[in-house]
Amino acid sequence: MSYRSPVAELRFILDKVVPLAPVSATEKFAEATGETVDAILTEAAKLCDEVMAPLIRNGDLHPAKLENGVVRSSPGFKEAYEQIAEGGWVGISSPVEYGGMGLPLTMAIAVNDMMSGANLALQLNPLLTQGQIDALEHHASDEIKELYLPKLISGEWSGTMNLTEPQAGSDVGALRTKAEPNGDGTYSVTGQKIFISWGDSDMTKNVCHLVLARLPDGAPGTKGISLFMVPKYLPDANGEPGVANSLKVVSLEHKMGLHGSPTCVMSFEGAKGWMVDGPNKGMAAMFTMMNNARLNVGVEGIGIAEGAYQKALQYAQDRVQFKPIIEHADVRRMLASMKAEVFAARSIALACAVAIDMGHATGDEAWTARAALLTPIAKAYGTDTGMWVSDQGIQVHGGMGFIEETGAAQYFRDVRVTAIYEGTNGIQSMDLVGRKMMDGGKAAFRLLQEVEEDAKAGREALPDLADAVWQAAETLREHTEWMIGQDMQDRFAGSVPYLKAFARVLGAHFHLRAAIAEGAGSRHAKLAAVYIRRLLPQFAAALAEAREGAEGLYALSVEDLSA
Amino acid sequence: MSYRSPVAELRFILDKVVPLAPVSATEKFAEATGETVDAILTEAAKLCDEVMAPLIRNGDLHPAKLENGVVRSSPGFKEAYEQIAEGGWVGISSPVEYGGMGLPLTMAIAVNDMMSGANLALQLNPLLTQGQIDALEHHASDEIKELYLPKLISGEWSGTMNLTEPQAGSDVGALRTKAEPNGDGTYSVTGQKIFISWGDSDMTKNVCHLVLARLPDGAPGTKGISLFMVPKYLPDANGEPGVANSLKVVSLEHKMGLHGSPTCVMSFEGAKGWMVDGPNKGMAAMFTMMNNARLNVGVEGIGIAEGAYQKALQYAQDRVQFKPIIEHADVRRMLASMKAEVFAARSIALACAVAIDMGHATGDEAWTARAALLTPIAKAYGTDTGMWVSDQGIQVHGGMGFIEETGAAQYFRDVRVTAIYEGTNGIQSMDLVGRKMMDGGKAAFRLLQEVEEDAKAGREALPDLADAVWQAAETLREHTEWMIGQDMQDRFAGSVPYLKAFARVLGAHFHLRAAIAEGAGSRHAKLAAVYIRRLLPQFAAALAEAREGAEGLYALSVEDLSA
Repeated sequence: MSYRSPVAELRFILDKVVPLAPVSATEKFAEATGETVDAILTEAAKLCDEVMAPLIRNGDLHPAKLENGVVRSSPGFKEAYEQIAEGGWVGISSPVEYGGMGLPLTMAIAVNDMMSGANLALQLNPLLTQGQIDALEHHASDEIKELYLPKLISGEWSGTMNLTEPQAGSDVGALRTKAEPNGDGTYSVTGQKIFISWGDSDMTKNVCHLVLARLPDGAPGTKGISLFMVPKYLPDANGEPGVANSLKVVSLEHKMGLHGSPTCVMSFEGAKGWMVDGPNKGMAAMFTMMNNARLNVGVEGIGIAEGAYQKALQYAQDRVQFKPIIEHADVRRMLASMKAEVFAARSIALACAVAIDMGHATGDEAWTARAALLTPIAKAYGTDTGMWVSDQGIQVHGGMGFIEETGAAQYFRDVRVTAIYEGTNGIQSMDLVGRKMMDGGKAAFRLLQEVEEDAKAGREALPDLADAVWQAAETLREHTEWMIGQDMQDRFAGSVPYLKAFARVLGAHFHLRAAIAEGAGSRHAKLAAVYIRRLLPQFAAALAEAREGAEGLYALSVEDLSA
Repeated sequence: MSYRSPVAELRFILDKVVPLAPVSATEKFAEATGETVDAILTEAAKLCDEVMAPLIRNGDLHPAKLENGVVRSSPGFKEAYEQIAEGGWVGISSPVEYGGMGLPLTMAIAVNDMMSGANLALQLNPLLTQGQIDALEHHASDEIKELYLPKLISGEWSGTMNLTEPQAGSDVGALRTKAEPNGDGTYSVTGQKIFISWGDSDMTKNVCHLVLARLPDGAPGTKGISLFMVPKYLPDANGEPGVANSLKVVSLEHKMGLHGSPTCVMSFEGAKGWMVDGPNKGMAAMFTMMNNARLNVGVEGIGIAEGAYQKALQYAQDRVQFKPIIEHADVRRMLASMKAEVFAARSIALACAVAIDMGHATGDEAWTARAALLTPIAKAYGTDTGMWVSDQGIQVHGGMGFIEETGAAQYFRDVRVTAIYEGTNGIQSMDLVGRKMMDGGKAAFRLLQEVEEDAKAGREALPDLADAVWQAAETLREHTEWMIGQDMQDRFAGSVPYLKAFARVLGAHFHLRAAIAEGAGSRHAKLAAVYIRRLLPQFAAALAEAREGAEGLYALSVEDLSA
């Protein structure tokens, strides 16, 4: 059996666990009815299962190549991409006025989940375009919007994000790329960027680079950074790709995975660019792109986890050692835990998407704050889940897991970067305990309040599970209150385990909701029991680590660590 | 900085944490004095650091190849191997009468740790030879010993283990390879074996295959299995490689890592073999090989963890983002945790080796039982540590971790198989809760008794740490008592988390010992605090999972898992 998009599970979550109903009830998203959701998921699943998934090994075995300065994508990718573009899948949640479907982001996230599971290397291209569309929609002038958005939304052109430089990774402010005014409203952009996913493509007629650069009078650090649209081909008078711009792909990286996605070193050599938003407003636009991208990267991890789980599940039924190995208790344990983790991570990501949609549709700041809080959790937990589940997928395969032919290893290699790019999971956790707690924990406490209310509601039908969730939420609340009183260094030292603990509690919450909705003894109740009884207890160990603060870590000097 | 063998740390552990002194005090190992230990470690370290480690990337970039039926090893491997052989490193713990050094296994384990960190793909060859030497020493006739042992111990010839067949992995008893008597005392071996590491080699003059096969009247299952020595070249009258045997390498596997180690599909086509030990005694001999191999595989994980840690530590000092990233709390947390894990896993492996040596030297069954108990823990925890530390090593590298040039990714790919081969870590955990508890937990309780005594001894100097260790040991004891009352299915369902919990408690124990030995405020006391305060709490979550038994897992039907 090959990959099958999890349509029914997504539908169930959007019905019962993280309801889309409040989103569909808004004027903005009135068209997102149950029927539309069904149609979208079913159609997208066909494309994923029949077109994208069969190409996943091609990307690995026949990586994208640089030939005469041009990227040649893996065999079959171009034809599959054309179907993605023609189906309108790039613009699910893009504005109707520029050719998008105008549906909630939640729908795009659900589709991206399925597509990431089918073939992440290929899917990364439209995903980056979606981030660019989002940034332009919120920050670009009408002129830029009218020129670029229709082409990006139709998938005719693709978009990239050019942030990182060799010396400027997490420290974006260290960037050196310069943008000098040409005197005609355009800019001349010069510098080198690294780690640019799909920095070139033979699948689209133009490649639009959003580039962070500094104006001649730009202040040092992040304050003096502006954003520029720098297309591979300069649009002519008709808006079609014209003269080639002064930029090139210098080389492609040799990566552990995602071979089908070319990771480019880009050189901008006085390339012509147009400023997006005003001078020195680059970081704000970058965060728009980033927030969209972070949630989507979490979803990449979830999609890969789904693919890895399905493959392991199939192998465990086919492989006989004494009996089909799925009947061995330890293999059963692995599979049940994998499925429970995927459900939890997927629910959190969709909850984040719903919060974003509600924020947009209602302008209610509580929703916006919730989205901001959930974004780093969705990113880090989604990608951690992708890594853990694909690791367990290898283990279920035994010796065959280490052999590339099965494909189990590819998931494991491909997904590893998701915990790194768009801000490492360490950066996500610092964002959670730092910036996202600048409200004094208000958004966090509101969320935990809901968790506790749901737990109370579940006490009659599922007392054990409900009590465990209530207790965990209460412990997390106490820890959060304590943490807000600590200085940043101590918060940061415990930020990764704190994020893990938070994700566990939320995962348990959504499992409980599913169990309550389906009732005691149901499939989701049994899956919830696996998560809440077996995996949730890890949150306490994570909080114990988080509580330790920084002192013990710095007590060990660099010399101690080197001895 | 490139790889530097952890001589001082190994020396410290053998002095203060897992003392070699009782071993040196036996008549059998009287020569293993402190001076000898120093000389061995220092000499081996030179070879590791200067000869083996510089070739690690060669193995990855230029994998072993099959050319006209013969394996061509990676560039430089043959020359390096010759130095391993000439230094006598294959036979550190082999009998003096056959040319070995006759030192304790503990010394071989310490050296294998360093060599695995330097270059596992290469090291795997002499490691498998060591397993074969061990099996022959304990099970072969004098004739076979006299012919093979000197050649194997000198490294002139190498040895392999031929167990697995496509349908017979964990279920060894399903094997189909046949051995038919030739009437002259030799046998004709026919069958296909897979996953044979270093099934051929251009580094040695002969390759000696130990092959599990069934006699014509052999019972089905494991009871009817015998072991055969099947050399690539039949020894001539002078004991030199003569006529080629009827066996061949059919193909090499394409693996995720360890590219420098050829993993062969072997075909035996009426190959001439000599029976080792008596008819149907194959499993006993296999377990001798396996037990040696299992501890060594754990050590492979530890060696790779050391290599990955050193690389990450260096990168964290060189890489500046705002400040050297080692000064960021989360990076510091990763590095300190990595180092603490390596120390714990290494101490457990050495404790297992010391127990084996004491068992051999004294015949005391308590030592033998301890060795048996510690073997699956050393294997699973050592390899889990290899995977976790190399994963964190990638994370410390950020984006560069996903790029192959840094080498961080290679550790991560290479080490993945160690949790699978020589019995998956799931099989190890079943061994622990099943076979190794057939004494009613006697060996486990004796060990926990020692942990508690050490904890009591440490209460004055390090009250917090000592109390935490005492409490953890007590909880583990209670859980173990409970577990022994459960049926096998319930034990197996919780076996992996139970093993993890046991390893955590032992790791904390050895950290505490180190802290007591060096005193409060010392480097090892600070490292112990990291382990005991931050990582030990995970044992409780693991035991909570282990306590759940099988019921909840099987409540989820295959249909539920597939929905």
